[in-house]
Amino acid sequence: LADVGFIGGTGPEGKGLAVRFAHAGLSVIIGSRSAERGAEAATEVAGIGGGNVTGGMNLDAAAADMIVVTVPYSGLADTLADLEEAIGEKIVVSAVVPLNFGGGRIGVIDTADGSAAQEIQRLLPRSSVVGAFQNLAAGHLLDVAHLVEGDVIVCSDDKEALAKVIELAQRIEGIRGVNGGPLAVSRFVEGVTALLVNINRVNKVEAAIKVVGV
Amino acid sequence: LADVGFIGGTGPEGKGLAVRFAHAGLSVIIGSRSAERGAEAATEVAGIGGGNVTGGMNLDAAAADMIVVTVPYSGLADTLADLEEAIGEKIVVSAVVPLNFGGGRIGVIDTADGSAAQEIQRLLPRSSVVGAFQNLAAGHLLDVAHLVEGDVIVCSDDKEALAKVIELAQRIEGIRGVNGGPLAVSRFVEGVTALLVNINRVNKVEAAIKVVGV
Repeated sequence: LADVGFIGGTGPEGKGLAVRFAHAGLSVIIGSRSAERGAEAATEVAGIGGGNVTGGMNLDAAAADMIVVTVPYSGLADTLADLEEAIGEKIVVSAVVPLNFGGGRIGVIDTADGSAAQEIQRLLPRSSVVGAFQNLAAGHLLDVAHLVEGDVIVCSDDKEALAKVIELAQRIEGIRGVNGGPLAVSRFVEGVTALLVNINRVNKVEAAIKVVGV
Repeated sequence: LADVGFIGGTGPEGKGLAVRFAHAGLSVIIGSRSAERGAEAATEVAGIGGGNVTGGMNLDAAAADMIVVTVPYSGLADTLADLEEAIGEKIVVSAVVPLNFGGGRIGVIDTADGSAAQEIQRLLPRSSVVGAFQNLAAGHLLDVAHLVEGDVIVCSDDKEALAKVIELAQRIEGIRGVNGGPLAVSRFVEGVTALLVNINRVNKVEAAIKVVGV
């Protein structure tokens, strides 16, 4: 049984976080709709940062102790509908951001639940959903020689799960977890990703944020 | 003629910014619906940080070189309707955040224009609206002995106005202005205020944000 399972872990954000968690000594399973692509991503991730990394189907990843969702927003509802039973009452971390690149502008899709994290909580009502890791640049995560800067703001209505995800975040060297309060606050954390993507575009950088005064 | 005029400047955010601008050597006029309350606020501001501070009606503040709007969101439309002619084509800085404290949660009101800054642009179509200063804690601004930490993210569709407001922000010691891109990005900067208010509440702090990697 892996420590952390990624649902939809074959994109840059999933692989980037997997690199860092595996590098920090956690065992990781990268899930995908295709077992073959899951295994390929695992080989790639282990090649970058080493550690105990396997790949498989999303259902295999759902068996891990803690689940991290890195599915693109467009596939979220379909993917999670099939996994609710396997995930059950576990801690589920939402790193999803419903970014919208329409009309040359970078924004966030207005979702019915207020945020992707709240939508995941609706889709997985028995689980303890925690919003986190939305604001870290995948490019930096994948480059293991690069010390990742930035705070991870962690939001949940389950205080015990929130504390565990702050600990998880702090397994990554250079990262601090900051208590952001209730799950509904994820809306603004997801908005920070849209803000950072805009800042990156106009300044030609790869930025992160830190909370000062905490 | 003052360098900076505050529309609705008698609240903590307006007074706090006025303290810092006056302390940095800019002349400031604090506008209010009541000339008497404007004058009282000016006396208070000058007493904290010194400098050239006067008070008056919002219409007096609208005569300044650059305008900063710090009206509570609920009074925004009514206040600006009367000032459009006086403001004309000037640079108008929106520090307004439509915070919502309903139901025990701290969020942002869903406004028709997407953000307070965009609403101000609709209300003052001839002006060059710039979103800035939404994320600085008034308590810190008012305490002139306290070095204000944090970045001011500056958004506008008018690049010249954006550059001028970055310069204005950097008149405050300790503050860096960061180009946030188009005015529509203000939506996410206003969201950061809601995020910070939540972080403040759960961690019992007065936080600010910094963008790292720029």
